[in-house]
Amino acid sequence: MSELRQNIITRDWVIIASDRANRPSDVAKQTARSKDIPRHDPTCPFCPGNEKMTVHEVLRIPDHGGWRVRVVDNKYPALTTEGERIRKISGIHRSMTGIGWHEVIIEHPRHDLTMARFTPEDVASVLTAYRQRYMEIQKDNRVEAIIIFKNYGERAGTSLIHAHSQLAATPIVPTQIRNRVEEAIRYFDDAGECIFCSTLRDELHARKRIVFESDRFVAFLPYAALSPFHLWIFPRRHQSSYDDVSDDEIRDLALVLRTVLAKLYIGLHDPDYNYSIRSLPTHDGHTDYFHWYVAIIPRVTRTAGFELGSGMYINTVIPEESAEFLRSVQVPESF
Amino acid sequence: MSELRQNIITRDWVIIASDRANRPSDVAKQTARSKDIPRHDPTCPFCPGNEKMTVHEVLRIPDHGGWRVRVVDNKYPALTTEGERIRKISGIHRSMTGIGWHEVIIEHPRHDLTMARFTPEDVASVLTAYRQRYMEIQKDNRVEAIIIFKNYGERAGTSLIHAHSQLAATPIVPTQIRNRVEEAIRYFDDAGECIFCSTLRDELHARKRIVFESDRFVAFLPYAALSPFHLWIFPRRHQSSYDDVSDDEIRDLALVLRTVLAKLYIGLHDPDYNYSIRSLPTHDGHTDYFHWYVAIIPRVTRTAGFELGSGMYINTVIPEESAEFLRSVQVPESF
Repeated sequence: MSELRQNIITRDWVIIASDRANRPSDVAKQTARSKDIPRHDPTCPFCPGNEKMTVHEVLRIPDHGGWRVRVVDNKYPALTTEGERIRKISGIHRSMTGIGWHEVIIEHPRHDLTMARFTPEDVASVLTAYRQRYMEIQKDNRVEAIIIFKNYGERAGTSLIHAHSQLAATPIVPTQIRNRVEEAIRYFDDAGECIFCSTLRDELHARKRIVFESDRFVAFLPYAALSPFHLWIFPRRHQSSYDDVSDDEIRDLALVLRTVLAKLYIGLHDPDYNYSIRSLPTHDGHTDYFHWYVAIIPRVTRTAGFELGSGMYINTVIPEESAEFLRSVQVPESF
Repeated sequence: MSELRQNIITRDWVIIASDRANRPSDVAKQTARSKDIPRHDPTCPFCPGNEKMTVHEVLRIPDHGGWRVRVVDNKYPALTTEGERIRKISGIHRSMTGIGWHEVIIEHPRHDLTMARFTPEDVASVLTAYRQRYMEIQKDNRVEAIIIFKNYGERAGTSLIHAHSQLAATPIVPTQIRNRVEEAIRYFDDAGECIFCSTLRDELHARKRIVFESDRFVAFLPYAALSPFHLWIFPRRHQSSYDDVSDDEIRDLALVLRTVLAKLYIGLHDPDYNYSIRSLPTHDGHTDYFHWYVAIIPRVTRTAGFELGSGMYINTVIPEESAEFLRSVQVPESF
């Protein structure tokens, strides 16, 4: 019989459909990715030498005359910095001007490398760029939430090959984020502890769903994982917002993130994936009840009508088995 | 500049990204669908003559010795009817046995027809089967919500060609549905009216987003449509649950649903799509504040990291333009 599990942080219910369960490795699907990606593509706007093809550069982490990471304005921004934040209420309609920030983080000069194959130092440079932009953008009082995210592969929403991620800053608190904050507050008032800290302690005690851990971060599958390799990376130290992360923690997170992505790359044959960094709304400051984290969703399954009609998910792989599988994947230093 | 819009029913915020807006027709993508689908496939478990290939048949709408519609147990059920509903709470973990119902509605004897090409009478038979199963299953006191949905095409989560839809009955109220009910109650208490009735009145007054209407139903794009052709079909008469629908209304809905699907088929070149019927949780009876409806999501775009990280959506086509486009698509009686 299947089992329903509820995620206490998101309140999402998931059906762990063990009757039609797959072995974790059954889910691995070779993605159709070009085999012969050159180290440098003269037509790629993200490659060194083509810096003029991108719009306004907002940050550059230099490296021997060149750069390690660049952050540029998105050429097709969903939200723009110019303009006033104006909320309109007309009858039953609520709208707001589309002001905010929408930037692209170019993660590496090389055209052919995906983050799973970066060095930990390369990943740390990307995470440092995220923090720098986060700290800068949250000074804009019109901004209420900052979402950092990565789309990798067509199923994850991008056809661009050159390694990149994005940052979007919205002039409202997205409802899903507000709901989670409210849930975290309720838990804090009931239990006297951050719900994320409780979850982390439970995972470290159970040791069934941990994929990789370091001194400062723990990567694990949530008890109610939405899909076969849905992963969370939590900082061990309580901190509510990504700008709280220290330099030491960035170095440590780089190792954990790179290891986890390499395990997916090797164990699941380079799947498409998304990740996002979830942080407290910027106007909420720093609190005892919320804890930032990284969520990774490999796109190995599809959501369908059941998910759209209910908000629930069906996961055909047992999270404990996915975790065991990923733990067993060995990651060489380079590959 | 983009515009942010909030859906007052779901509270979802959407970025209508008009700066990178597409014309509605740009979104149409020819789906790779087999050209030579036979009227009958001897290997298809849903084709007449192969009834033994399906598991337990729970309903049959007969037709001249054969059948118009069959409902069978799902061969790979996510939820099963046998067993007790047992909720377990262990430390911070909440789970429940996977009891419930999971059925497949085989919509038509012919292997090659998609619902857009059914006659309205064929569609009415499917809707009647839905209602009959809905009424039967809600007698099961272990059930708290019934979700009727359809996956059409690979991007929508199915590779089966023969026209079919599904019904899942869950032993909990999915959190997303509970949140919407709570929102509907709050609106009712504030405004003294069902939020769906208010929305429908507004749409009928504005006439900007309506795609098709009949005596008893109205199909329109929500003001804050999540994606380019996100559609809702509301009954005009207030009714909270799908089992409230009358025979006359079923005939009328069949015409509306078939017309809308035909407009998508013709105007967008047979896109993959999902639809679902959203209804009040079964234990809530019949209320003044909730209103059942059909939601249709053509899978012409993909959700990516921004959506996963925020719960917000980016829609690159203005809903009013999508509605105008679909209004202009002519539907012949058969095609």
